[in-house]
Amino acid sequence: MDVAVLGATGDIGRAICAELIERRVLRPTSRLQLVGRAGGASGRAAHGLRVDLIDAHDEHAPLIDVATSPDEVVADVIVLAAGQTIPTGGGRVVDRDGLAAHNLSIFQDYAAAIAENGSGHEVVVVVSNPVELGVAVVAEQIGRHRVIGMGAWLDTLRFRREIASALGIRRQRVSGFVGGQHGDGAVPLWSSVHLRGLDVAERRDVIAGLRGPRTLASFGAEIADAKAQLAAVEADDIAGAFALTDSWAPDLQAVVRPYLTHQSGAKTAFGTASATVDLVDTVLDGREIVVAGQVMLDGEISLQGSPWCGPMGVPVVLGPDGWRNVLLEDLAEDEEERLAAVGHHINSAIEGWTR
Amino acid sequence: MDVAVLGATGDIGRAICAELIERRVLRPTSRLQLVGRAGGASGRAAHGLRVDLIDAHDEHAPLIDVATSPDEVVADVIVLAAGQTIPTGGGRVVDRDGLAAHNLSIFQDYAAAIAENGSGHEVVVVVSNPVELGVAVVAEQIGRHRVIGMGAWLDTLRFRREIASALGIRRQRVSGFVGGQHGDGAVPLWSSVHLRGLDVAERRDVIAGLRGPRTLASFGAEIADAKAQLAAVEADDIAGAFALTDSWAPDLQAVVRPYLTHQSGAKTAFGTASATVDLVDTVLDGREIVVAGQVMLDGEISLQGSPWCGPMGVPVVLGPDGWRNVLLEDLAEDEEERLAAVGHHINSAIEGWTR
Amino acid sequence: MDVAVLGATGDIGRAICAELIERRVLRPTSRLQLVGRAGGASGRAAHGLRVDLIDAHDEHAPLIDVATSPDEVVADVIVLAAGQTIPTGGGRVVDRDGLAAHNLSIFQDYAAAIAENGSGHEVVVVVSNPVELGVAVVAEQIGRHRVIGMGAWLDTLRFRREIASALGIRRQRVSGFVGGQHGDGAVPLWSSVHLRGLDVAERRDVIAGLRGPRTLASFGAEIADAKAQLAAVEADDIAGAFALTDSWAPDLQAVVRPYLTHQSGAKTAFGTASATVDLVDTVLDGREIVVAGQVMLDGEISLQGSPWCGPMGVPVVLGPDGWRNVLLEDLAEDEEERLAAVGHHINSAIEGWTR
Amino acid sequence: MDVAVLGATGDIGRAICAELIERRVLRPTSRLQLVGRAGGASGRAAHGLRVDLIDAHDEHAPLIDVATSPDEVVADVIVLAAGQTIPTGGGRVVDRDGLAAHNLSIFQDYAAAIAENGSGHEVVVVVSNPVELGVAVVAEQIGRHRVIGMGAWLDTLRFRREIASALGIRRQRVSGFVGGQHGDGAVPLWSSVHLRGLDVAERRDVIAGLRGPRTLASFGAEIADAKAQLAAVEADDIAGAFALTDSWAPDLQAVVRPYLTHQSGAKTAFGTASATVDLVDTVLDGREIVVAGQVMLDGEISLQGSPWCGPMGVPVVLGPDGWRNVLLEDLAEDEEERLAAVGHHINSAIEGWTR
Repeated sequence: MDVAVLGATGDIGRAICAELIERRVLRPTSRLQLVGRAGGASGRAAHGLRVDLIDAHDEHAPLIDVATSPDEVVADVIVLAAGQTIPTGGGRVVDRDGLAAHNLSIFQDYAAAIAENGSGHEVVVVVSNPVELGVAVVAEQIGRHRVIGMGAWLDTLRFRREIASALGIRRQRVSGFVGGQHGDGAVPLWSSVHLRGLDVAERRDVIAGLRGPRTLASFGAEIADAKAQLAAVEADDIAGAFALTDSWAPDLQAVVRPYLTHQSGAKTAFGTASATVDLVDTVLDGREIVVAGQVMLDGEISLQGSPWCGPMGVPVVLGPDGWRNVLLEDLAEDEEERLAAVGHHINSAIEGWTR
Repeated sequence: MDVAVLGATGDIGRAICAELIERRVLRPTSRLQLVGRAGGASGRAAHGLRVDLIDAHDEHAPLIDVATSPDEVVADVIVLAAGQTIPTGGGRVVDRDGLAAHNLSIFQDYAAAIAENGSGHEVVVVVSNPVELGVAVVAEQIGRHRVIGMGAWLDTLRFRREIASALGIRRQRVSGFVGGQHGDGAVPLWSSVHLRGLDVAERRDVIAGLRGPRTLASFGAEIADAKAQLAAVEADDIAGAFALTDSWAPDLQAVVRPYLTHQSGAKTAFGTASATVDLVDTVLDGREIVVAGQVMLDGEISLQGSPWCGPMGVPVVLGPDGWRNVLLEDLAEDEEERLAAVGHHINSAIEGWTR
Repeated sequence: MDVAVLGATGDIGRAICAELIERRVLRPTSRLQLVGRAGGASGRAAHGLRVDLIDAHDEHAPLIDVATSPDEVVADVIVLAAGQTIPTGGGRVVDRDGLAAHNLSIFQDYAAAIAENGSGHEVVVVVSNPVELGVAVVAEQIGRHRVIGMGAWLDTLRFRREIASALGIRRQRVSGFVGGQHGDGAVPLWSSVHLRGLDVAERRDVIAGLRGPRTLASFGAEIADAKAQLAAVEADDIAGAFALTDSWAPDLQAVVRPYLTHQSGAKTAFGTASATVDLVDTVLDGREIVVAGQVMLDGEISLQGSPWCGPMGVPVVLGPDGWRNVLLEDLAEDEEERLAAVGHHINSAIEGWTR
Repeated sequence: MDVAVLGATGDIGRAICAELIERRVLRPTSRLQLVGRAGGASGRAAHGLRVDLIDAHDEHAPLIDVATSPDEVVADVIVLAAGQTIPTGGGRVVDRDGLAAHNLSIFQDYAAAIAENGSGHEVVVVVSNPVELGVAVVAEQIGRHRVIGMGAWLDTLRFRREIASALGIRRQRVSGFVGGQHGDGAVPLWSSVHLRGLDVAERRDVIAGLRGPRTLASFGAEIADAKAQLAAVEADDIAGAFALTDSWAPDLQAVVRPYLTHQSGAKTAFGTASATVDLVDTVLDGREIVVAGQVMLDGEISLQGSPWCGPMGVPVVLGPDGWRNVLLEDLAEDEEERLAAVGHHINSAIEGWTR
């Protein structure tokens, strides 16, 4: 079982490659393809990255080779991490329109090449942003069940970690998902949160304590307000800014803390890589696992009375052939409302970007 | 058992931190300290790195905290990866004098702080270059048996990998060490090379085939010549440059290929991190393992008839309390000559840098 | 998160304990409780087993303690491996009635103790046979969603492995489940089999090749016939008997080969332990994974037009709080018929055993 | 790199096979050979064990095959775990003469076959008892540097664990070795004990506290007395017997607690397997690690003024080609005396057994 990483030499691509080998997701007899662009810095550096990865892990590394054209991509699982990324450093704002404009043609080129040259069985994990756009573009070319966006899984892991942290426990004791759009359009599905070792009544109490009287109706405004507060602090006192976030509710932390991490000048490469490798591992290991991911829906769920179509983050059963069942039951009212609002927003944004 | 990484937010420091957690070298109940500099970019980014590492690995991550002053460093094993690094990108030359001038005060500051505030039991793994200078400075402050430089271990891993690659086997089937100075002053100890599954006569034949009629007397000149050949090719044809190295002898490849990797615009962060984490793991796991490392010798070995004093890469037994026995037996004549020459070079360079 | 193993000193219990520690399913800060019976050999040996496990794994072992009464059992996940097991050695027949008679009171004692003293959040993994009886008894006491039987997961792993073996691939490339009753009442769900890397048409061809023209209507008769054939060979030529099974269809192999393993004098302790630890790991690691297991159904599925009630092996989503959704869609006709027949058989057997 | 386990179907052999696969010491592309005896129960059960191991670990299991004659043994590392073992259950005494009489011909048969059919590069790890006899017999046939006995490593791990336990720390913080004869003739080398995180003066104090005023001169008598005390308690109160050992010094515990474990009816299979797999892993992984093991000495050390010859447990550097340097420096006087006494005892026992 082979994996190709498109955009392997970027900060995120490199972290993904390293973790794929490190976690032994790729066996010694399988193949890792590092994909850069001929004629660019990434095409040059891919050769050096190959040497560095073998230096690090020759004892158990897979076969590693380099490709510098979309046509050369051959793998069972393809990680789409190419393109421009969200910049780091103080004062930057995330310009999703700019990202979309830059990355659309990259998505299209790779999707077309996979459709044309592929085996017809590849599963594509979209990491690049806007992840919903990437999922839409690739799904159109190779079929929607073989494409999943990583963003909702990363949001989910962050949401669980913030809940865990607030309770002083480890993340694996928390389940529950984040759906919607990756970034500020995230929809924390509080109704799906379970805590290992609590019964229904205890869980309700604990979650009420964490969440307070807030509903998702105000979530967008809270995010904007939180960012404004951080902007006033972070330039002079980054430690203080992080401390400030500690007092906020877990769902708000899950969205705002990665933003602050970017402002600090750090990258979010490891969190992104870890979530990505989780999904690759799930596809490769033969089991079916419930994850959240951006998928192209075609009526599997209904929101506010209508079957929904379009790319959106939801919990799905992911396995070797891609995703199947959507597991989104018993949504709370505010969750359904926000999912619908975010979904409309995604669909109209994509319409604008691809017009 | 706690680990501090000085220079945690650099490319190498980040890769070390990630691999320490990823490989479970640090347990969930231990502590990882990310050390940056107050008032600088590294101090800001350390806070963001902390969030990113926890996002990635909350299930099993150690406690992670941030320090922004040498005085705050507290750990059982301290990884010294702070300071300026060798630049990447075509056409750069490694300026060890410049590195030394820049990093000397960093070595001194941290060494003094560890000596003053430390428990007296820390083991320091020096990653920054010039590694021999770092070892000398730290050894003077905290005692020589608790300081080891990572460079010779990385050189060793690369040497073994090139031999393995030439024979079509995995690195773990090859033993043998590289000593001397990290970089162009490396001394490949062919006499220490063993190959799993070969008897003495077979080994001699295989090594003769790999090595050809060359001795180490010409090794320095070969390196210079190889770099000149690569410089003529790499700018226009990086793949061709890497292919060119494939035809060279393993010891030459081990020294020149990392140089070419830097020229390609890639970093050698993963190889460096992996070698570093090997040493940290060895110190933490309670066993004693034979590794190569830069250590401050005080007569443990004799070269050309005289007991040797000064920092140099040699095979040692490394364990929880640092290094003890040097295992350097039956050196070949050319090895002893080159070790002595390189040793003189190191000692005089350090004298110059620290004057 | 703590685990108790009831019947820890039996061959299967011992293998489970070792694998729980070996695979790091239990962290160093968690607890493993070895449960034997006061006054019996298992109560004595539990103390020695504790020493042996710590000797083996002190570097990362959890806290290990010994309990010798059902009332002392305290854990988040409880593995029920106590009681009599299927004997090994040539010529033995599996006497499920005898097992049931012997193990019923053990199931009842532990279930009552867990219900009375437990936290109300335990998940119980039933390993002992008849597993469907164990599930029924425990579910009645503590609620059905917190009890799962391991048998269908072991059958599933064997079914996948036989398919994989026939195709010359690794098990993780095969998905698909076995439901029904553990042992001769297994129902291989061919309709759920997927093969990584094949599209729908290819998969249909490959499966048709493996399965031949057979349907499950004849499966019971095939098992009986296969055992008769093996009985004629195994006493004098065990290698020949195993070779004979190699020519049979994967579903038949999956049921008959474990029988032959018992006849050879070997145990099936490692396969059993591995499947059990998979389930424990799933419950502890915070993710939800699709597995097969014996669960107490209460109308989640319909067979031949009627909602089904009673213990039966089916694919479920298993997570930290136990199992939820049953994922049994689009059954083939012969699968539904055999599931119904086996289900009636289970229900009437349990009625007989518990009368 | 392939491994053969002689005596694979015994309790210890089975645990070794499982752990070799579980710990991924054997890669998926390597081979594990299960060796039993044609015409006996072990030959039959080896076929079943093969199926059970694959059932458990098909995702990453090596190729597994069965051999039923010494002539068929082919591997890079051979684990000699065949023969009779120390019985479990209350009131049994260890009869080393009986073991020797029974196992000598097994040692001889396998050693002769390896010498005749082998590649000349095999490393043999002797697990069966008397381990010193096994080492002597095999060393004579295939050369002494390719044979190591596991007993001293197991004794070492137990000694470290008891020290760690007394101090409330994990075993990896303790180094130090046990040499001599496996069992009651063990020689705890207190002078080699280091404790991670303590300086020389602190270590001396802690060890003095653990050890009391005792020297090794009385160690043999202490062991005999301890066993007598336990015999008076264990039949009626096994928990009390284990509790009694808790009050004893670590070196005494290290020798007596395994004896009591056997009396409890438990086996010491996991501790034995873990120590064995450590050694196999060391040989396979390409590094050189300092371990204790029974090796055939030929003057590498001097005891009481004379170079020592004969099989004895000592610290050695173990690597892919077997063992080389003995690291036994600065013995305390009582250690040297007991090593010499035990060594004479071993040599004369072997003379008796092989006469």
